[in-house]
Amino acid sequence: MAKIAMLGSGFIGRFYADSLQGQRSRDKIVSIYSRREESAKKFAEDYKVTHWTTTMEEAVANPEVEVVCVSLPNNLHEAAVELCCKHKKAVICTKPLGRNAAEAKRMLEAVEKAGIFHGYLEDLVYTPKFLKALESVQQGALGRILWAKSRETHPGPHSEWFWDKEQAGGGCILDLGCHCVEIARSFIGKDVKPVEVMCWADTQVKPIDAEDHAIGLVKYENGAIGQFEVSWTFRGGLDLRDEVMGTEGTIWLNSFLRTGFDMFTTGKGADYVAEKAESNSGWLFPVGDELNELGYNHMFTDMFNAMEDGKAARETFYDGYVVNAILDAAYKSAASKQWEPVQLEIWRGKEGLSKEKTQQDYDEQYYLVKEEMTHFGAKKVILKDKKTGQIIEKTLA
Amino acid sequence: MAKIAMLGSGFIGRFYADSLQGQRSRDKIVSIYSRREESAKKFAEDYKVTHWTTTMEEAVANPEVEVVCVSLPNNLHEAAVELCCKHKKAVICTKPLGRNAAEAKRMLEAVEKAGIFHGYLEDLVYTPKFLKALESVQQGALGRILWAKSRETHPGPHSEWFWDKEQAGGGCILDLGCHCVEIARSFIGKDVKPVEVMCWADTQVKPIDAEDHAIGLVKYENGAIGQFEVSWTFRGGLDLRDEVMGTEGTIWLNSFLRTGFDMFTTGKGADYVAEKAESNSGWLFPVGDELNELGYNHMFTDMFNAMEDGKAARETFYDGYVVNAILDAAYKSAASKQWEPVQLEIWRGKEGLSKEKTQQDYDEQYYLVKEEMTHFGAKKVILKDKKTGQIIEKTLA
Amino acid sequence: MAKIAMLGSGFIGRFYADSLQGQRSRDKIVSIYSRREESAKKFAEDYKVTHWTTTMEEAVANPEVEVVCVSLPNNLHEAAVELCCKHKKAVICTKPLGRNAAEAKRMLEAVEKAGIFHGYLEDLVYTPKFLKALESVQQGALGRILWAKSRETHPGPHSEWFWDKEQAGGGCILDLGCHCVEIARSFIGKDVKPVEVMCWADTQVKPIDAEDHAIGLVKYENGAIGQFEVSWTFRGGLDLRDEVMGTEGTIWLNSFLRTGFDMFTTGKGADYVAEKAESNSGWLFPVGDELNELGYNHMFTDMFNAMEDGKAARETFYDGYVVNAILDAAYKSAASKQWEPVQLEIWRGKEGLSKEKTQQDYDEQYYLVKEEMTHFGAKKVILKDKKTGQIIEKTLA
Amino acid sequence: MAKIAMLGSGFIGRFYADSLQGQRSRDKIVSIYSRREESAKKFAEDYKVTHWTTTMEEAVANPEVEVVCVSLPNNLHEAAVELCCKHKKAVICTKPLGRNAAEAKRMLEAVEKAGIFHGYLEDLVYTPKFLKALESVQQGALGRILWAKSRETHPGPHSEWFWDKEQAGGGCILDLGCHCVEIARSFIGKDVKPVEVMCWADTQVKPIDAEDHAIGLVKYENGAIGQFEVSWTFRGGLDLRDEVMGTEGTIWLNSFLRTGFDMFTTGKGADYVAEKAESNSGWLFPVGDELNELGYNHMFTDMFNAMEDGKAARETFYDGYVVNAILDAAYKSAASKQWEPVQLEIWRGKEGLSKEKTQQDYDEQYYLVKEEMTHFGAKKVILKDKKTGQIIEKTLA
Repeated sequence: MAKIAMLGSGFIGRFYADSLQGQRSRDKIVSIYSRREESAKKFAEDYKVTHWTTTMEEAVANPEVEVVCVSLPNNLHEAAVELCCKHKKAVICTKPLGRNAAEAKRMLEAVEKAGIFHGYLEDLVYTPKFLKALESVQQGALGRILWAKSRETHPGPHSEWFWDKEQAGGGCILDLGCHCVEIARSFIGKDVKPVEVMCWADTQVKPIDAEDHAIGLVKYENGAIGQFEVSWTFRGGLDLRDEVMGTEGTIWLNSFLRTGFDMFTTGKGADYVAEKAESNSGWLFPVGDELNELGYNHMFTDMFNAMEDGKAARETFYDGYVVNAILDAAYKSAASKQWEPVQLEIWRGKEGLSKEKTQQDYDEQYYLVKEEMTHFGAKKVILKDKKTGQIIEKTLA
Repeated sequence: MAKIAMLGSGFIGRFYADSLQGQRSRDKIVSIYSRREESAKKFAEDYKVTHWTTTMEEAVANPEVEVVCVSLPNNLHEAAVELCCKHKKAVICTKPLGRNAAEAKRMLEAVEKAGIFHGYLEDLVYTPKFLKALESVQQGALGRILWAKSRETHPGPHSEWFWDKEQAGGGCILDLGCHCVEIARSFIGKDVKPVEVMCWADTQVKPIDAEDHAIGLVKYENGAIGQFEVSWTFRGGLDLRDEVMGTEGTIWLNSFLRTGFDMFTTGKGADYVAEKAESNSGWLFPVGDELNELGYNHMFTDMFNAMEDGKAARETFYDGYVVNAILDAAYKSAASKQWEPVQLEIWRGKEGLSKEKTQQDYDEQYYLVKEEMTHFGAKKVILKDKKTGQIIEKTLA
Repeated sequence: MAKIAMLGSGFIGRFYADSLQGQRSRDKIVSIYSRREESAKKFAEDYKVTHWTTTMEEAVANPEVEVVCVSLPNNLHEAAVELCCKHKKAVICTKPLGRNAAEAKRMLEAVEKAGIFHGYLEDLVYTPKFLKALESVQQGALGRILWAKSRETHPGPHSEWFWDKEQAGGGCILDLGCHCVEIARSFIGKDVKPVEVMCWADTQVKPIDAEDHAIGLVKYENGAIGQFEVSWTFRGGLDLRDEVMGTEGTIWLNSFLRTGFDMFTTGKGADYVAEKAESNSGWLFPVGDELNELGYNHMFTDMFNAMEDGKAARETFYDGYVVNAILDAAYKSAASKQWEPVQLEIWRGKEGLSKEKTQQDYDEQYYLVKEEMTHFGAKKVILKDKKTGQIIEKTLA
Repeated sequence: MAKIAMLGSGFIGRFYADSLQGQRSRDKIVSIYSRREESAKKFAEDYKVTHWTTTMEEAVANPEVEVVCVSLPNNLHEAAVELCCKHKKAVICTKPLGRNAAEAKRMLEAVEKAGIFHGYLEDLVYTPKFLKALESVQQGALGRILWAKSRETHPGPHSEWFWDKEQAGGGCILDLGCHCVEIARSFIGKDVKPVEVMCWADTQVKPIDAEDHAIGLVKYENGAIGQFEVSWTFRGGLDLRDEVMGTEGTIWLNSFLRTGFDMFTTGKGADYVAEKAESNSGWLFPVGDELNELGYNHMFTDMFNAMEDGKAARETFYDGYVVNAILDAAYKSAASKQWEPVQLEIWRGKEGLSKEKTQQDYDEQYYLVKEEMTHFGAKKVILKDKKTGQIIEKTLA
């Protein structure tokens, strides 16, 4: 049983609480901190939390508390983490870890120095679909991974602080790109070094300073490419899709708008449908169980099991730091209009990988370029002469 | 915390155990009974169950046990339930409740007489998609329900006893139809009386005595129609789909083969993909989290929460009995080739409902038949004269 | 080049004309007949038809006309066909052929007696998807066909006469069931005799005399089952889906609402989207090319190529007659509440087929019931003793 | 009626011929040129072409020929076009127009100087889905277009010359990117100037010199972004998808792998399924009518109608030139690793567009950032102070 202090009572804090105390969970929130008393009380009442406070440190220091869940605006993560270090409480922190890599690095170093358990709450690498897909990838079902794309777009976040560059640290790259980057990185291999980033970003629609639409490519040391597509200007709901290409296969995940649940209604009687849905009549695409589909359940299970077993979680502050470093490079690239290196002062994965060459021998003279069935049922091969480089075509009986 | 005796260590018992002790569950299996010692021991080891036995009563009587989970072949349900009554242990029983309504009725009467908690483990009315769809239906998003269809087909069950008519009590109607009937009944309203059934059944492919393919219609007192399509001869995996039509809307659920997870693999490295998948190369359609998607998690949550709160579960032995009564009528109809009445000696819902008439007035003279937009952007109405019955068409400016 | 007289200038006549004179077609409508002068003139203008008339015989008798396309309400088909016989003009007639089998039989006998070319305009067995699916079925990709279902439901037809039982001859069974029955029959084999029908029909919503919702099963001599689901009460657009199950495979066709075209719009600027769409904002599912997707192009190509080659079309009045005979049995069954025989006074297919038995030998002692991979990667077989009938399970190394 | 000389008898030439002479077409191929006599003869026989030759000029000069269809490898387009200019024959040329913009420009200038009709055979902007989507976009259903992505990936082309950089002029960027670029450009507006391109390209799998995988972004003068994703390394068939985002809506097109046609087969009896499918068992996704779905029919209809009407086709050599100029910039960017300007010596669209600003007033003090429904059914607005830039959140009753 984990005894949790929740810092923050907003949209994400409540979502977390629904998961933490949902189903037949043995875990319990024992303290809630919110900047606003009214909000803290309401949360305490709704989730039957015995202790509430408007002083962050009081929640962290509460002796019943074993683990602190940081669900605050981005600009408050570091202060919260410092308190956990001071009071030697395990800490799990919502995404992105920092507003930039410098902030994230300080947090990582602080928790490691304090010797406390730390988890990075990147829920989208804990969705059931992602977990099963990753398992297939790791078992080799897709061969060597060439490209992994993750897309998260919707009509914009729920709370005002997201839209304020100072509090949030950025726009949709930071808010949504952090998910996408970690998804792609996981498929490609978390021990493969991200080396450089190319990113386009723009403020196309919203009256804000930060970007509301961005697309980026992350090149890894082994030649694989991660891609993110993020926006706060998408119309139609929450678009959450991943795609992976490998030498032996393909994966397509749709985590929200097309999951096998289609509803048409003329509009009488329907209420809240799904996170970020845009209407309540016509064809709607609800998700059965958002908490599970968005990965919250499996994420907290991993966090608390790891904590109880004295192991590291799948996602730690180190991962949060790597993601921030990649996003920093993305922001730089959007400004410089060229590929920018990922600055990783801390790197714990492989070094010196190079692009794998896969020239498949056909026979002594030729490489195999392609094999296919023709319309007429014959087998055809396209071959490349190893010496001359000439390409030829050969139809087999 | 629920302390459970599991009766049966086969495919379904293990699936249940994965859910019961999965995620951060506070519940625990404390005793396992299996007919075969080897199987009991293996289960005990895999799920860290402290007590195992090959004597059913020993598991039920075990003083630590609060609730008994019956995961046995159909022909053993009644004996297990009797033991629970004798030892006054709460009981939850897998589907179908009985091999027929007579058996189910005896079980229902026994648990009620014994005053013990009883739950009917019909997981497919606990899938996240179903629960959210049902909520929408109950809120009126679809208006009056006209028709609800549920389809479950696959290439056949895993264990030998399903294929033996004596042990199973029937073929795919009993095995799969029980799910479909309860799904449709739930959408239409569990307090609306099922009155008659028309069913076609045949043994089209398998060398067995029972049916391997059947289609049935269940007529409810208010004129709504439930439909089931079941088969053990389907090729391509586990097809699990529901459809609902109402006067104001439509719902389509796909619970297995098309849930937003598409994978192509040439076949190197992939292993077990999903329950009842038929291959491990080409395009595959895994499910992210079978336990959750198939409703096990929400089902056990409902069961144990209800038990702890001293309330009835959403699905009780009464529901199991109603389902068996409907399936009995289906078997009769398949033989008699006509609609057969549902024999319900126990009925606790509404009585005397009649078909709702919905003649929508257009004006004093006409009923509205239909309203539509033409290709040319004009609005057109089709009207019926209230007196003469004549149908006319009118284009509005 | 085919020179056509079009009888009828309504919704279907215009749809046909769009196809007949569409793309780079060499065919031409040379005469248009409509009951209403205004409508005839408008059609003539829109489609550049040189001759228009309000006298049916004038169009048929027009010397330039080679082939007459009957696009009239159901109650006028027979009279139109009689005129074609009289003037020895080839005739192609929209669906259903007659209001009942008696009418259809008279038309069939008349055209055969007159020795004129006749085609039955059942467009939905000419959709590109259907044609390719049928080809796969005929090549054996699905093995022996067990079941073929076709579903057509929408919010009701466009013109007033459909809603009038006298003119239309019935409700949605006749209007939509004719499509579904011919689709299923084609997959099962047009030479396999339909023997009996079970049908439920009701008027659940609309203020009309005819049925607005029906479901039927058609049993064929070889044990295969055709199923139709038809309704004028569906909400959400035009639902057009087919499913086929065979011993070796499965086919699912979605011809309208989910064809790979998804559009979300807040509603500014969108107009007519697709036949029978219900709204013009939110998520919409247009079809790229309705004429082609609904089969019109391939249908007319087959008709005119056959006519020019002196061959029979794929769909003739004989097929229309068989369909009407099946629908007659459906109406009877809806009233009698039991399976009703299909009365086929004319039958030109196979006779005396019986249900195929497929007991697959495993070895000398056993039949194979099922073979599968277990979770643990082992191969398991379920076997039936040929003599005792006992079912056993065997795990292979 | 168009009388056509076909230059090239390979895969694409035959595909074109199937469309040109398909259905009830009035058009006719009257001469076929192929480098290989055997191939020319076979084509002539299959398509009933009266004249065949192995001399290109003979086909072009053939007096019966009105229009020449160039279906040759990329390196032969220019020579073929020159012959058409010389003999004053209308010319339609397959994609890409040139191997680079210089080649394309020479062809454009040549046909304009010769005063002959010229069409650019970019079939994918003629698919029925694309045409309907474009119409919706042009009617404003999506508001202002922000981003248009087109993706074409498959396991590699059919003929050897594609794999030879000299003949083809490049790899998948040229082969597939030409489609994607024109699709995105069409959605954004063909009169909006493409200004710069950022592209990543690599040879990840194939033993070739050209790129087998690339991703590019094309920035347009009004701030809109076109995106292409192309590869010859994709596993699973032909992936052909477009996505468009506008301020008021979204479009998703899937033109090949998910079009509402799903087939599972154990593999007995199935043959050729679809262009570039990778297997013939398991779950397969055929396309109903490839010719129509890939746009060939509507493309040739537009070409010949335009030619007969003395108008320009929707796609002319000018469009082919613009596409080549964009692809040139893509190749440059892949090498230079920065955004590269699109060099357009000929530009006939708008000049001087700037990014549209859309600050929506909420009231005098605030801009509206976002409006949404909360979980609790209340309406919430996020606002930005026009002067201070402060973001606030306000819940409305």
